[in-house]
Amino acid sequence: MSVTRLHTTSVTAEGFELQLSADGRLRHLLTMRGLDRERIGELLDQSQAFVTSPGEPVARSDALRGKTVANLFFEPSTRTRASFDLAAKRLGADVLNLDVNTSSRKKGESILDMIYTLQAMRVDVFVVRDAEAGVPGFIARHVNEFVSILNAGESDVSHPTQALLDLLTIRQRKGRIEGLKVAIVGDIAHSRVARSASEALVTMGVGELRLVSPPALSPAAGTVPAEARILNRLDDGIRDADVVMALRIQRERIGNLDGIPGIDEYFASYGISHERMKLAAPGAIVMHPGPMNRGIEIESSLADSPCSVITQQVANGVAVRMAILSTVTQTLDNQRR
Amino acid sequence: MSVTRLHTTSVTAEGFELQLSADGRLRHLLTMRGLDRERIGELLDQSQAFVTSPGEPVARSDALRGKTVANLFFEPSTRTRASFDLAAKRLGADVLNLDVNTSSRKKGESILDMIYTLQAMRVDVFVVRDAEAGVPGFIARHVNEFVSILNAGESDVSHPTQALLDLLTIRQRKGRIEGLKVAIVGDIAHSRVARSASEALVTMGVGELRLVSPPALSPAAGTVPAEARILNRLDDGIRDADVVMALRIQRERIGNLDGIPGIDEYFASYGISHERMKLAAPGAIVMHPGPMNRGIEIESSLADSPCSVITQQVANGVAVRMAILSTVTQTLDNQRR
Amino acid sequence: MSVTRLHTTSVTAEGFELQLSADGRLRHLLTMRGLDRERIGELLDQSQAFVTSPGEPVARSDALRGKTVANLFFEPSTRTRASFDLAAKRLGADVLNLDVNTSSRKKGESILDMIYTLQAMRVDVFVVRDAEAGVPGFIARHVNEFVSILNAGESDVSHPTQALLDLLTIRQRKGRIEGLKVAIVGDIAHSRVARSASEALVTMGVGELRLVSPPALSPAAGTVPAEARILNRLDDGIRDADVVMALRIQRERIGNLDGIPGIDEYFASYGISHERMKLAAPGAIVMHPGPMNRGIEIESSLADSPCSVITQQVANGVAVRMAILSTVTQTLDNQRR
Repeated sequence: MSVTRLHTTSVTAEGFELQLSADGRLRHLLTMRGLDRERIGELLDQSQAFVTSPGEPVARSDALRGKTVANLFFEPSTRTRASFDLAAKRLGADVLNLDVNTSSRKKGESILDMIYTLQAMRVDVFVVRDAEAGVPGFIARHVNEFVSILNAGESDVSHPTQALLDLLTIRQRKGRIEGLKVAIVGDIAHSRVARSASEALVTMGVGELRLVSPPALSPAAGTVPAEARILNRLDDGIRDADVVMALRIQRERIGNLDGIPGIDEYFASYGISHERMKLAAPGAIVMHPGPMNRGIEIESSLADSPCSVITQQVANGVAVRMAILSTVTQTLDNQRR
Repeated sequence: MSVTRLHTTSVTAEGFELQLSADGRLRHLLTMRGLDRERIGELLDQSQAFVTSPGEPVARSDALRGKTVANLFFEPSTRTRASFDLAAKRLGADVLNLDVNTSSRKKGESILDMIYTLQAMRVDVFVVRDAEAGVPGFIARHVNEFVSILNAGESDVSHPTQALLDLLTIRQRKGRIEGLKVAIVGDIAHSRVARSASEALVTMGVGELRLVSPPALSPAAGTVPAEARILNRLDDGIRDADVVMALRIQRERIGNLDGIPGIDEYFASYGISHERMKLAAPGAIVMHPGPMNRGIEIESSLADSPCSVITQQVANGVAVRMAILSTVTQTLDNQRR
Repeated sequence: MSVTRLHTTSVTAEGFELQLSADGRLRHLLTMRGLDRERIGELLDQSQAFVTSPGEPVARSDALRGKTVANLFFEPSTRTRASFDLAAKRLGADVLNLDVNTSSRKKGESILDMIYTLQAMRVDVFVVRDAEAGVPGFIARHVNEFVSILNAGESDVSHPTQALLDLLTIRQRKGRIEGLKVAIVGDIAHSRVARSASEALVTMGVGELRLVSPPALSPAAGTVPAEARILNRLDDGIRDADVVMALRIQRERIGNLDGIPGIDEYFASYGISHERMKLAAPGAIVMHPGPMNRGIEIESSLADSPCSVITQQVANGVAVRMAILSTVTQTLDNQRR
């Protein structure tokens, strides 16, 4: 039973129709698609409750005491994995970090048999990152009613907790999302961050969404919301923008694809710099999902300047993941009753 | 001081004479040999107390609060390691997962110096998996009186917690072990699962134990109980059997050893299928220690059918390990008094 | 922003001027330099309070409940990492073990961006081991006021928790450090253990400090205290010594550097043996930081004899790390008020 045969296209693969329980509660988090403005607003409110400043004690509770969270990262990750790990531990969960490189997958076990095995061990929440589209949704379709799946990054398709932390950060700094002009800049074609953020921003009523990339990295038709403006000149994207989000560019893509320039040229054309930010609206903020290539997609000193909210995004990431873990395990507990 | 020089044969290497304390309590778990029917029955009863269904809260206690469990896996493993990890955490232990690949072993440190070091750090229980026969017993002979060794898989020789979870699963489904006809099918010669299960089944009074394999994979003399019937035809093994356990076949052995057929031929001759199971007793169950090669040693749809108890085995694995951890640490505590 | 450009020499790189808070409390532990005899004495007293014997329950508390400790090991390590891991867990901390090989560092993220990211996730203490000199101090200069850095081994330069556990062990066995004759034997030139121990021993008023090595491995000028006697003949070092500490020799150095003999010759000239120990003072003890090359720098049977304190050093390591973790997090809490 191969994963590849079970999902169809990367768009339907996200499985948004699965993520709510019969009584309308969030049970899996696979994609931002299908989540409406009210629900996203609630999730942001719940996330905000877990935000504390460095001078205060960190948010903690025992909400997940007795629950088991398994981090299944089939792609390497430091930051997202650490963020989920800490979120789960600070809620009192037992956490299983599976090193998939030294695992049974070597012996040819299918993903699904691995999941069934861990489900039998009473894992409650699987946090899944995979390079192949459709894997989180595929897993969600096969687990029993007492298990939740959280998508921690799925190919080029979906990264919903990243979208939520982006929204939370914008809301904290701008007070709202509705009506804002937001520019996302970089390798739009291959960015799960851009796709999930775009979907969420449109749902939340963003004023104008601009997706800016070299022509060779423009999004394929149907992969981003129809409301988005697809642009190829940075100045067009950044002018009067309230929020500018730089995306990580894979170094191996630079200079190696038709129409994608070398590093210096990339920075000159698509790098977010102090100079470029003069075109943006007053008080505009700069975002980046990390890890950054300083000097390529973003000017190093800009990343450390007051308009940068990059570390705030990271801090919000833990809060968002605590809120999501709390929410889905409560949904599971309700199903158990 | 080399491990190899200190143990003698793989049979005496298991160290069954070490595993009870002076007052007859279980202190290490190295092998099923030397454990009598009463003791195994008690361990199964204790394990059963940790079994809960997915609709119920998972079993937890603070019995190991303040204890430290170190998982020392010198062979890669997902399922057994995760099972011990969760068992220890759900009893409140501190767990040390040692990545032996990136460890001091690279620097040439002997196993024993690694153990002495961790013992000095006050590790209470070592969970040891090793590709070399004799390692768990060797370690057990050298640790101090406040330390327990649990064998989590030893070469071709021993895998006692697997045997206990197999017994527990059979007992749950069949109500007893005594008098049953049990067939174990596959690479008997190289299977620690088959050896430990065979020893335990005979101790528990199994009615008939059949070990079925291609001739080239029949067990060597003296490695399995004298009561076992050694067979080479699957039909002879499966006829009227109450329990059929398929073993994992290493893909690298198939077609590469004299007398071992290719994949298709292997499945035709030794694969457990719906068709073959018609020969078994009514209500017979199918077991597999995992991870499965679907379509090689077991028909894929059979593994997911109602007669399969494969995920129940996995669930029982955590319960068995919780029971063993509780038992040996209580033995240690008694020695301390 | 490269690490290499930000520190200057390996001597100033240690950052001893950073490690105390404005009100004189220990906030980072980067080096033994700059810590005076009174402070070291206090740290040893605090460490002693965490020492228990194997027959007693292990020391535990909830002093770090709600705190997060991140182990950032950029060099492989079993023992030091396990020691910090257990120390943190036994104080109730949440521990993040970062596998730097499968991490964002692959993607070219700088150390500092990784630290800023983890700091934003509210890591309180970073335990850092790195092959490059200056990294722990570099990090300490850049974290915010609510974060502590503990040096767990820095190139050839510094290993302060090892020095503290060495002092604690000597004090336990000899009742004092003042006035003792201590010989450190081996690859002095490349040993962070020798450097940190030398600095600490001189501060504590050691009677005579002898650093014994093949001429090719003598310390460079200025890297060890002026009080140390630099020797090349083992007999000169060991005669009347109260404490003899053997250092690990990297196997790849043996026989491959000018003036460094092969294995047998190394043992004959610099190996610590029962025979050689006859020259030492009555009741002299033998130390080794581990992992040992038995038969190269130390006679195997000597390492297991009553004069060896090698496992006691390991046990003290956990106690020292618990004391340091308690101390620096208390400093952080005081800054928060």
